[in-house]
Amino acid sequence: MAERLDLTEAQIKDFFTSLSNWGKWGAKDQLGALNYVTPEKRARAAGLVREGKTVSLSLPLATTPSPDNPTPVVHLMMQTGDLEEAQFPLPYSADYFAIAPHGLATTHLDALCHVFYQGKMYNGYPAADVTVHGAKNGAIDAIKEGIVARGVLLDIPRAKGKSWLEPKEAIFPKDLEAAERAQGVQVEEGDILLVRTGRHARIRALGAWDSFREGLAGLHASCLPWLYERRIAAMGADGASDLFPSGYEEVVAPIHLVTIVAMGVHLIDNCDLEAVSEACAERSRWAFLLMIAPLVLHRGTASPVNPLAVF
Amino acid sequence: MAERLDLTEAQIKDFFTSLSNWGKWGAKDQLGALNYVTPEKRARAAGLVREGKTVSLSLPLATTPSPDNPTPVVHLMMQTGDLEEAQFPLPYSADYFAIAPHGLATTHLDALCHVFYQGKMYNGYPAADVTVHGAKNGAIDAIKEGIVARGVLLDIPRAKGKSWLEPKEAIFPKDLEAAERAQGVQVEEGDILLVRTGRHARIRALGAWDSFREGLAGLHASCLPWLYERRIAAMGADGASDLFPSGYEEVVAPIHLVTIVAMGVHLIDNCDLEAVSEACAERSRWAFLLMIAPLVLHRGTASPVNPLAVF
Amino acid sequence: MAERLDLTEAQIKDFFTSLSNWGKWGAKDQLGALNYVTPEKRARAAGLVREGKTVSLSLPLATTPSPDNPTPVVHLMMQTGDLEEAQFPLPYSADYFAIAPHGLATTHLDALCHVFYQGKMYNGYPAADVTVHGAKNGAIDAIKEGIVARGVLLDIPRAKGKSWLEPKEAIFPKDLEAAERAQGVQVEEGDILLVRTGRHARIRALGAWDSFREGLAGLHASCLPWLYERRIAAMGADGASDLFPSGYEEVVAPIHLVTIVAMGVHLIDNCDLEAVSEACAERSRWAFLLMIAPLVLHRGTASPVNPLAVF
Amino acid sequence: MAERLDLTEAQIKDFFTSLSNWGKWGAKDQLGALNYVTPEKRARAAGLVREGKTVSLSLPLATTPSPDNPTPVVHLMMQTGDLEEAQFPLPYSADYFAIAPHGLATTHLDALCHVFYQGKMYNGYPAADVTVHGAKNGAIDAIKEGIVARGVLLDIPRAKGKSWLEPKEAIFPKDLEAAERAQGVQVEEGDILLVRTGRHARIRALGAWDSFREGLAGLHASCLPWLYERRIAAMGADGASDLFPSGYEEVVAPIHLVTIVAMGVHLIDNCDLEAVSEACAERSRWAFLLMIAPLVLHRGTASPVNPLAVF
Repeated sequence: MAERLDLTEAQIKDFFTSLSNWGKWGAKDQLGALNYVTPEKRARAAGLVREGKTVSLSLPLATTPSPDNPTPVVHLMMQTGDLEEAQFPLPYSADYFAIAPHGLATTHLDALCHVFYQGKMYNGYPAADVTVHGAKNGAIDAIKEGIVARGVLLDIPRAKGKSWLEPKEAIFPKDLEAAERAQGVQVEEGDILLVRTGRHARIRALGAWDSFREGLAGLHASCLPWLYERRIAAMGADGASDLFPSGYEEVVAPIHLVTIVAMGVHLIDNCDLEAVSEACAERSRWAFLLMIAPLVLHRGTASPVNPLAVF
Repeated sequence: MAERLDLTEAQIKDFFTSLSNWGKWGAKDQLGALNYVTPEKRARAAGLVREGKTVSLSLPLATTPSPDNPTPVVHLMMQTGDLEEAQFPLPYSADYFAIAPHGLATTHLDALCHVFYQGKMYNGYPAADVTVHGAKNGAIDAIKEGIVARGVLLDIPRAKGKSWLEPKEAIFPKDLEAAERAQGVQVEEGDILLVRTGRHARIRALGAWDSFREGLAGLHASCLPWLYERRIAAMGADGASDLFPSGYEEVVAPIHLVTIVAMGVHLIDNCDLEAVSEACAERSRWAFLLMIAPLVLHRGTASPVNPLAVF
Repeated sequence: MAERLDLTEAQIKDFFTSLSNWGKWGAKDQLGALNYVTPEKRARAAGLVREGKTVSLSLPLATTPSPDNPTPVVHLMMQTGDLEEAQFPLPYSADYFAIAPHGLATTHLDALCHVFYQGKMYNGYPAADVTVHGAKNGAIDAIKEGIVARGVLLDIPRAKGKSWLEPKEAIFPKDLEAAERAQGVQVEEGDILLVRTGRHARIRALGAWDSFREGLAGLHASCLPWLYERRIAAMGADGASDLFPSGYEEVVAPIHLVTIVAMGVHLIDNCDLEAVSEACAERSRWAFLLMIAPLVLHRGTASPVNPLAVF
Repeated sequence: MAERLDLTEAQIKDFFTSLSNWGKWGAKDQLGALNYVTPEKRARAAGLVREGKTVSLSLPLATTPSPDNPTPVVHLMMQTGDLEEAQFPLPYSADYFAIAPHGLATTHLDALCHVFYQGKMYNGYPAADVTVHGAKNGAIDAIKEGIVARGVLLDIPRAKGKSWLEPKEAIFPKDLEAAERAQGVQVEEGDILLVRTGRHARIRALGAWDSFREGLAGLHASCLPWLYERRIAAMGADGASDLFPSGYEEVVAPIHLVTIVAMGVHLIDNCDLEAVSEACAERSRWAFLLMIAPLVLHRGTASPVNPLAVF
């Protein structure tokens, strides 16, 4: 069980008020904290590019079932290189895939309609706005124009001198700040914060585990005021950002719930942060241009994404 | 029927030799003309960002069948905001979608394994490398690190003083060059060339038509040497780049076949170029940072993408 | 527009009361009029088998889009006979298919939860019982044990001396009775009534049309009391049983609504009745053993089926 | 490891010759041993119906992943009873499902193209006939008219006085014959043989296991001559008919391979035989009318089915 510190569940519930951005960008806002990414900040982020090197933050789409992947991606061929079978004057190949982007095995961007607290989503839209035909508010296509901003990686295990955090290992505000100091970087308004726990380093070394049952390293709920004050625009992690188990019964995933619902912060789950961590460490530079281009899925609750860091 | 000029089908077949980049970047190369995008060029492209404005070049994923969309995207909900139906301690919504990314209604990036000529794909890999389990060479995940480069839009109807080209209307090298002159831009080595025909302006004004049967504006085969000489890294269009019908019987889609197979040029089909055309015209700037982040689909032949132009 | 006879829309609405079987088989009944198929009737139906000849009443699963098939069946291969690609010690082939069984191109059995009137389904269950996780009442797996009963085919065009009925051509009670007389058969309690309009004969002769827009032959609403009085257990047709357009604005598909909701009659839509019609005519026998075995889809609203007539 | 008796792998390979029905029903035959079900036999089977009671032999379609179900059925709703969301004048519900019918969790009928030996399927058709577009020979729609025949259940654990066989427990010809004697029934030409191992009784009592890794009770290869001599038309089991592991390295699943490829015997895998076993025991009658109606999936390699026994 994660360390509770002094934070009670009642105090977390208060965050839905005290850390709320509802109405801040208007009653009809669909972008949430992405409003912090002003054109000026975006242009400045582009100015971080020096070498022109890109690094993907995406896992491969996972076609194999596992406890973390109960709805694997189906990838099948409609047409192969078997040219006798071509159904078209042009010899070609083509494929088909089916994907349930949420879950713990796919790098995906959560839309603001993805989670609810007390029947509401970000900005007070009712949960009932998400029907069998998708989301009338907070949908992924609201951010069709993509996320282009400064990305800042806080590499928690590296700052602690470890290869990875263990499942259930909590990240506290002091850990975020220690990483800032160790890396010489500061999370600022409009940044996309990326938090590395070393999950995929551990998977590659020790094999996969069942994140829901055996736990996942992540941010403790006590990080929420810190995230709010820093005015991050979005957050990604190599897990789900949340610590599993969170230590709370009702607000079972406080990071997801308070960042998305109250703060309007988009989350990018299950990034592969191993390569970008190496790239940052080699350069001793932990900020870079980050580009995320969700598929334009009308009324969707998420998109699989391939976030690109550019150095 | 498209104007044939003097170009015979035999001459197009010669292009597979005369315009070939096979072996140019090594016998095992998987990137093709994307090799032209050097880090230096990529960094220079980032330097084009001034205002920090992003523009999506993607159509919405098309869930409605049409002659151009015989395999529509299926988008369904796994969990809605009906909170009594929640199957998880965290109230959430989630969706599922199935997609066949090739075709004339989805903005997608073709992998180099997508088309074949005489049983071969780019760099001489055999078509038989694309089996029921996907592509062993030329797959989309070869470009996991994405495309980040200078994008140059040539707006052919605008240069001709029209709202759009008509179906079957051919674009010739002189049209590309006239657009360059009119726009004051030059297509250079390592650029991603975007060619606007005004297809979606026409659809929005007059309604959709069956592109295969009724034709599609696009590049005439005589543009191929021009594309080769300019050393473009990739090419996108609001149609399929190719003129339909091409006027040729065997090499039925000469742009697809020669650019992808011989030149190793990735194509981005069915972009929505209306907004980016407006953005360029307003600024009288036709070059910008372009970022394309394909999903990491192991052995895939394409990815749906949401290309982002950044001004 | 279909002949309205004297039947007003208000009178059709009264059918939801006057032709109701709600409560007849208990407040928790899930079988509806299939309760009319007693074991005795089932055994008697088996006694109709003389020659041991079977005839399928199913169309092929339709993988091609059309106005009647906006969500075509996707059929793809997971493993082919390309033995070098085998992923298993046993050389095998395997496929995958995705299906939306409702619609006008798939032979399917509607569950009792398929349609609603005034927010209710058969037996008074609320429409809200069908959530994003399927149907809590009236689901297809309620009839897991299948339908085995006497089938009676009324071949309306044959009785009228035609090859087929035209789109929008209505079938009235007098037509059903004329077919009974012409064929020497009587529809009785517990029968599965099959009504042929010749739709597929017409499609094969003249090509397909858009049934929703151009109309479909079917039973006029005035047949409803007749169906109720005959105590049919289920009904199938080569269209949707309903006449399109029905001639009514609110109760837009009166046959679907009154038979399923009020009477608890399962419908089998889009049967191919051409072969069984020939088989009956050759034998001058219009009653036979009929067997329908829905897939056991928990909480499903329908199943694709292959009904078999046995002579 | 299963008892090898005296049967060597070489002897099993000889079965592909000695137990072959290739050519027996013509060079173009697609039905295999279903040819044994003559109309006369079918009519006689219908004569077994006395009470008119039906029993399903199907498991529910399995939507949850497990080692036996790596590609679970996807079942989603296209339209619920949320009437405000109706997209059609008629308030209705509708669903969508995707299924990979082969595997160890779905009751399915294997087509004759499902397995290969030395590059051939039943009747000598080449494995290469099964391409990315499905099977040109031996496809499931060859038996569109369904299987209607006498079913005979041999309940092996019951005959042995057990509740179930253990994983890896082999069934030998003497066990089949002991069950015949105990039950007072004889497997005859044209019968559909159903072999119960008690797999689902064991799953319900002790929980599921990984059949591939931990084994599955089934017929030992030495049963093959017995099956051939009895001239069964098809065979079903509550497992895969085959004993896992078979004890053989090359002909790894000898029952599947020899029955399907050599004998042309269709197999029905993963039946739920618990209810039919009870029904038979209550009546001391082990033969009944059996009806199997595969979906008409053009070029398919299997169909999910709901076999119905009628007493």
